[in-house]
Amino acid sequence: MRHPSDEHDPRAELPGVDASGAITPAELQLSARNHGLPLEALAYDVTPAGMHYLLTHYDMPVVDPASWRLGVGGLVGQELTFSLEDLIARPAVTQAVTMECAGNGRTGMSPRPIGQPWVVEAVGTAEWTGVPLRAVLEAAGVQDAAIAVLFGSLDRGTEDGRPTSFERSLSLADAHRDEVLLAYAMNGQPLPPQHGFPLRLVVPGWYGMASVKWLERITLIDRPFEGHHQVRGYCLRQTPDEQGEPLTRMRPRSLMTPPGVPESTSRERRLKPGPVTVRGRAWSGLAEIARVELSADGGESWSEARLAPAPSPWVWQAWEWAWDAHPGTHELCCRATDRAGNAQPLEPTWNLGGYVNNEVQRVPVIVARSELDV
Amino acid sequence: MRHPSDEHDPRAELPGVDASGAITPAELQLSARNHGLPLEALAYDVTPAGMHYLLTHYDMPVVDPASWRLGVGGLVGQELTFSLEDLIARPAVTQAVTMECAGNGRTGMSPRPIGQPWVVEAVGTAEWTGVPLRAVLEAAGVQDAAIAVLFGSLDRGTEDGRPTSFERSLSLADAHRDEVLLAYAMNGQPLPPQHGFPLRLVVPGWYGMASVKWLERITLIDRPFEGHHQVRGYCLRQTPDEQGEPLTRMRPRSLMTPPGVPESTSRERRLKPGPVTVRGRAWSGLAEIARVELSADGGESWSEARLAPAPSPWVWQAWEWAWDAHPGTHELCCRATDRAGNAQPLEPTWNLGGYVNNEVQRVPVIVARSELDV
Repeated sequence: MRHPSDEHDPRAELPGVDASGAITPAELQLSARNHGLPLEALAYDVTPAGMHYLLTHYDMPVVDPASWRLGVGGLVGQELTFSLEDLIARPAVTQAVTMECAGNGRTGMSPRPIGQPWVVEAVGTAEWTGVPLRAVLEAAGVQDAAIAVLFGSLDRGTEDGRPTSFERSLSLADAHRDEVLLAYAMNGQPLPPQHGFPLRLVVPGWYGMASVKWLERITLIDRPFEGHHQVRGYCLRQTPDEQGEPLTRMRPRSLMTPPGVPESTSRERRLKPGPVTVRGRAWSGLAEIARVELSADGGESWSEARLAPAPSPWVWQAWEWAWDAHPGTHELCCRATDRAGNAQPLEPTWNLGGYVNNEVQRVPVIVARSELDV
Repeated sequence: MRHPSDEHDPRAELPGVDASGAITPAELQLSARNHGLPLEALAYDVTPAGMHYLLTHYDMPVVDPASWRLGVGGLVGQELTFSLEDLIARPAVTQAVTMECAGNGRTGMSPRPIGQPWVVEAVGTAEWTGVPLRAVLEAAGVQDAAIAVLFGSLDRGTEDGRPTSFERSLSLADAHRDEVLLAYAMNGQPLPPQHGFPLRLVVPGWYGMASVKWLERITLIDRPFEGHHQVRGYCLRQTPDEQGEPLTRMRPRSLMTPPGVPESTSRERRLKPGPVTVRGRAWSGLAEIARVELSADGGESWSEARLAPAPSPWVWQAWEWAWDAHPGTHELCCRATDRAGNAQPLEPTWNLGGYVNNEVQRVPVIVARSELDV
């Protein structure tokens, strides 16, 4: 929303980019439908149902589980059809996974790409239960000519006025990884409708677009899939004509639970002077987190937080940092660096879709001078 | 967001009103935290967990149920303290209730009052299980001097920099109504943290602000409660100096599930020509719904929908309307009228807080001329 400086930025003239700073009516609709993780919910190892981030591309389908089937076809040894009961009867795996929307951080970019106006909260960790995708692929048999697996969903809409559905593919190698699940339960309950009932893909380590919801068919294909959400959406590009780099794994990010208490409308935060333990989580789909650093002066100086060990490669790591809050206004920042050397940047790197802005989180706080102020 | 016409509106100069049309950074934070009902979820009689609207005033507290207690005091016969187990052991009631945020429709107002930027979706219906408030009041005994019941919560923040918490009161008569519950379960599960775990008030028929979440104390008082959320927030006023009219019961509203399918970003909707059944819900906290009318021409002409009977006074009523969609662009509208004669208006009535805008819902749709267009 840093619009005053945008007026002569040529990028503001590109399609899908907002030149005015005013949010569009469609974005208001999106922001009322979709929702992020309230940052105080970083307190939970596993995000309670309803607090996990949620992004829907079109409309959430209402699915009758009695008539729903998953079809597995294309370049397979034999086409297979599974009912929900068939899948539940197979050996199950339960796995906690941190999932983040590729558009998280979008509103930090200037000029602002139009889309779900996330600030920093589009993340959550859930325990998914389901069948390993590999087991289903092995049951069907994969022909030698197959190079990728296409996941088709019941999430239907239009792009440029033409009918489409949300479809994504994975390479054969990615689809055969141990951790990729066909999930029918979330936090020990049947999938909620909004998280893909009755079945969704879960691809740990990747941005959420890979974890196709409301799955209805799996197709083995012999050429790269070039559908809208594979080659237009979810690619990093500077102009509409570029081919762009497809998004895959999550870049490192750390988030803190903002300390103190907020004003209801301005969200301005206040706390008392004295020792404060600032807590949060950090994750990366590229490698384990190596360190989380905190700053209380807007990023001028940094010191390292105490980082809890990673419970698995697929979930966020808890951290905490002792701060001696003295009266005044401060900008708290946190940044994570992973063991592959990827660090959160201080500024966003702009792209047309408003993706993967993992710039450091900045939380302004007022430490009150007297008890009357807090 | 009808900002171009606002430039010379003197109301745009009032505190808390947006003169520019640009959403504020704090509103972006609010819209990522809070969420409405995705309108396709109107299909469910009882809204699935996580799809019910959610508005939090400050931060959601993380409550340990083992140490949590509900205190009942003030002008009572004897002060009482309840653990969660104590409450669960008492005779329980389960009741479906439609609840709507008083700020629903806020972004339809011009100039736009700053706050959670709802469009029309801030509603949901849940099955609440709990103890009738009256039974708890009778157990404590109410002194003759008491005139109201104050509900204190763990939802803490600041207003104008001063510490506060979310507190609301009900008159003694309202508090003793049969349908008012102290609820510890939602849709058959323990309350989710974001809906007030471990205990919340549920006041059927009223806007959601009355149903205080994260309840921690009930106090019988002998004078009107004048806290921020009783006499400043949730009152209808035109200027900050007015006393204002406190909000109570929900005005009638009807909502349709928008027919057809959306574009992912613009939310523009398309459908095929031919017969379409448009479905939705309608409710009023003031009286049973008398009729729901639909228009396919932006409100020029109306015809009556088929309305299902009310299952109880406290839940929405289903309706459906047969439309013969012919090619072109159309604006579908719906409006409800209750048996007390309250009808949804065609235009909002402005107020400083952006409350109770129950203007008719308007859904533009494109009926495609050929199969290529849909």
